[in-house]
Amino acid sequence: MAIVAGVTVLGVTGIAEIAPGDDLVDLILAAVGDGGLADGDILAVTSKIVSKAEGRVVAAADREQAITDETVRVVASREYPGGVTRIVENRQGLVMAAAGVDSSNTPDGTVLLLPVDPDASARELCVGLRAATGVRIGVVISDTSGRAWREGQTDIAIGAAGVRVFDDLRGTTDAHGRPLLVTLPAVGDEIAAAADLVKGKTSGMPVAIIRGLGHLVADLDGAGARSLQRPAERDLFWQGSAEARAAGRSEGYDEGYRDGYDEGYREGPEATTDASPE
Amino acid sequence: MAIVAGVTVLGVTGIAEIAPGDDLVDLILAAVGDGGLADGDILAVTSKIVSKAEGRVVAAADREQAITDETVRVVASREYPGGVTRIVENRQGLVMAAAGVDSSNTPDGTVLLLPVDPDASARELCVGLRAATGVRIGVVISDTSGRAWREGQTDIAIGAAGVRVFDDLRGTTDAHGRPLLVTLPAVGDEIAAAADLVKGKTSGMPVAIIRGLGHLVADLDGAGARSLQRPAERDLFWQGSAEARAAGRSEGYDEGYRDGYDEGYREGPEATTDASPE
Repeated sequence: MAIVAGVTVLGVTGIAEIAPGDDLVDLILAAVGDGGLADGDILAVTSKIVSKAEGRVVAAADREQAITDETVRVVASREYPGGVTRIVENRQGLVMAAAGVDSSNTPDGTVLLLPVDPDASARELCVGLRAATGVRIGVVISDTSGRAWREGQTDIAIGAAGVRVFDDLRGTTDAHGRPLLVTLPAVGDEIAAAADLVKGKTSGMPVAIIRGLGHLVADLDGAGARSLQRPAERDLFWQGSAEARAAGRSEGYDEGYRDGYDEGYREGPEATTDASPE
Repeated sequence: MAIVAGVTVLGVTGIAEIAPGDDLVDLILAAVGDGGLADGDILAVTSKIVSKAEGRVVAAADREQAITDETVRVVASREYPGGVTRIVENRQGLVMAAAGVDSSNTPDGTVLLLPVDPDASARELCVGLRAATGVRIGVVISDTSGRAWREGQTDIAIGAAGVRVFDDLRGTTDAHGRPLLVTLPAVGDEIAAAADLVKGKTSGMPVAIIRGLGHLVADLDGAGARSLQRPAERDLFWQGSAEARAAGRSEGYDEGYRDGYDEGYREGPEATTDASPE
């Protein structure tokens, strides 16, 4: 028998519908109960309840306008019957379909925007929960995101505090003594994904506790989930393929036209006649 | 107290270095021990040991050549000091850096290729483990992969059998009774990510047991992890931004040159003189 204790993901139930101004620290503590949190626990909190507590529910007769308002940069778009899918970089720096604007699980005529600064939201939660419980925990705020090249969605970390979002293996060596240069596990995203496996099983479960990853729990001055975002200038996929192709085509056309015009002008009909009279 | 039982990820230790021809069913069963597997368990197995058992370790004086051989289509590439990063679609249909060719944790002068057909490998494992134990389990074969827009890597499912890789919520409704049209959680990838949280904690832990997701365990005739791959023709990021831009530029240049030439030819110097003699 060589099965060793690993990681447990526990669901937290009993958190009612959140309204603007609700104190998530109080509500989470009430739900987990006295002694419900232990040193080294990481709380994965769905961004939905953070947004709702922060009053990020806005009236939106036009969901498309809300997406436009949250958009910093359109990365790609594609028409489908009945609409347009827009993959954009949003104000939080996240590349997501519909800018992370969510119109499911919100009252009719409203949409839910992501927290203004998810790392700050995570920090506030983490500080409050640590102060109230006296235990050293970490917080990850998760949201659902599509991916390039893969079907379906996974949850990713959009905010984090008190937890390392990378398990930095650089500087360590493999089993043959060679340095592991490349591997940088994005454990923040893996924690969000693991939590979704539990949260997704039941509706109305916006918080999960991940127990067994105490080595990732850290001080509050860490980098946060923003560090999981690759800046566009370092991304090989900063622009959709069709958009990049169209931009290149337009640039190339202008350049080709100028070159072609010059050449054609020089070789115009009379010029040719001049060059070979009779 | 409203913490509910969720999902447990258990590490399996005691699996020694794998050699070509090793029987993974036997080795895994020996490691987990009698009664170590229960109905509804999902085994996450790192592709490394599957590749090794299948003899996919090849001598490679030139790692670059091995990558080229595994490549079906170059998606993007970028030079860095000392080499070139190539993101490619490999023979398995996966878009990955270096085609999934791994030169860490292999003997010097060799590289590890991915299993030829990871879904088939998962199926063989699943059939063998179910037959030997009499319990209904699922198998996910995982590998580490980079992502567009996100730093670091997560584990994803590259093979699966006896387990649903999507938790299809389409057709269900949200809390307000509206259909959830879009959400299609890629639970296969989330399982691989959750397992990596445990496997990554300790070296030499190539297998993890995910317990508590029995609702995802399924018959053997399911779609497999191949269904997690979005075909290039449906992908907005099927080609790197720089590559798409260069291709567009070249097309546009040719077209612009032709148009410019025709226009310049018509407006050539003598043509202009002819049009306004004296």
